[in-house]
Amino acid sequence: MEFLKKKIREEGIVIGEDILKVDSILNHQMDIELFMKIGEAFYERFKNANINKILTIEASGIGIAAIAATYFKVPVVFAKKSQSRILNGTTYSSEVYSFTKQQSFHIHVSDRFLSQDDQVLIIDDFLANGQAALGLIELVKAAKGSCVGVGIVIEKGFQDGGKLLRDQGIRVESLAIVDRFTNGEIRFL
Amino acid sequence: MEFLKKKIREEGIVIGEDILKVDSILNHQMDIELFMKIGEAFYERFKNANINKILTIEASGIGIAAIAATYFKVPVVFAKKSQSRILNGTTYSSEVYSFTKQQSFHIHVSDRFLSQDDQVLIIDDFLANGQAALGLIELVKAAKGSCVGVGIVIEKGFQDGGKLLRDQGIRVESLAIVDRFTNGEIRFL
Repeated sequence: MEFLKKKIREEGIVIGEDILKVDSILNHQMDIELFMKIGEAFYERFKNANINKILTIEASGIGIAAIAATYFKVPVVFAKKSQSRILNGTTYSSEVYSFTKQQSFHIHVSDRFLSQDDQVLIIDDFLANGQAALGLIELVKAAKGSCVGVGIVIEKGFQDGGKLLRDQGIRVESLAIVDRFTNGEIRFL
Repeated sequence: MEFLKKKIREEGIVIGEDILKVDSILNHQMDIELFMKIGEAFYERFKNANINKILTIEASGIGIAAIAATYFKVPVVFAKKSQSRILNGTTYSSEVYSFTKQQSFHIHVSDRFLSQDDQVLIIDDFLANGQAALGLIELVKAAKGSCVGVGIVIEKGFQDGGKLLRDQGIRVESLAIVDRFTNGEIRFL
């Protein structure tokens, strides 16, 4: 998706070896024209997958998922984050380890919003170590639903999340895959 | 907005005297068809206000603001929440008191995403005590921008946020105003 890569080259800020800051377009300020193209691109890739629900995680996945859903015409559910596992039995929960923050958090979805009838597309802004995506897949499995695929805006090809998911047979569609950063320059796969 | 009121009557769960749970359509699962009608309704009301940016707050404002922005064709900025004030001088911050949680939190926007050139529409899901909206307005003022109005999906007419904002001369457009709950039934103004 050349439009996205161009935007990332123009707006992305590389910090150190592995951090790509895209907060002017993706996860603090949201470039809505770009989001519409992203939503359309996800639709092109998954339109025949018979999805009936999009699942994402707060906060930066929500805007992307919401706009993508205008193409699919399906509801979006966003998993909520908290420090502690909620034990009241009315939510599906899973644990996600954050390599960036070096700590775990829990994600939750009410059991009213995921069921065995759901054909779920998971959407998120980044795929790095894959822990958030795996946590979301666990929620879908807990509800006995099906995960038909994972749609990612930016995959860090040099981290192992993509391999981890694809090795499990999960269909992962990343609109841009960053291969490496060379002297602050962004190289795509 | 009859469509919205109908949805709230069908899906809303009244808890006690003042809590309205609409998590099946608005702030956990998001009814995207409804969101598009909400976005269009905000556009109808503010299309002549020359806005160039929408500001909201994570997490439940993001989806509504993103879809509204597809009508306005402007970027969205979402304020981030944290427990502590960030003091590095690169963000605008304000303090928001939550009556529900009976504690304060801080909200932040990078100073790269709000400026004196901005004509900002603030969008949020609920208006109750008005503290979140006031905190967002403070961020716009800190950046020397203008707040042209506040767009709200559900205003609780029996709480004082709406009056607080309107008394300051702020244009508030609420798509549904709940007057009161009578025996678990929702009455609109």
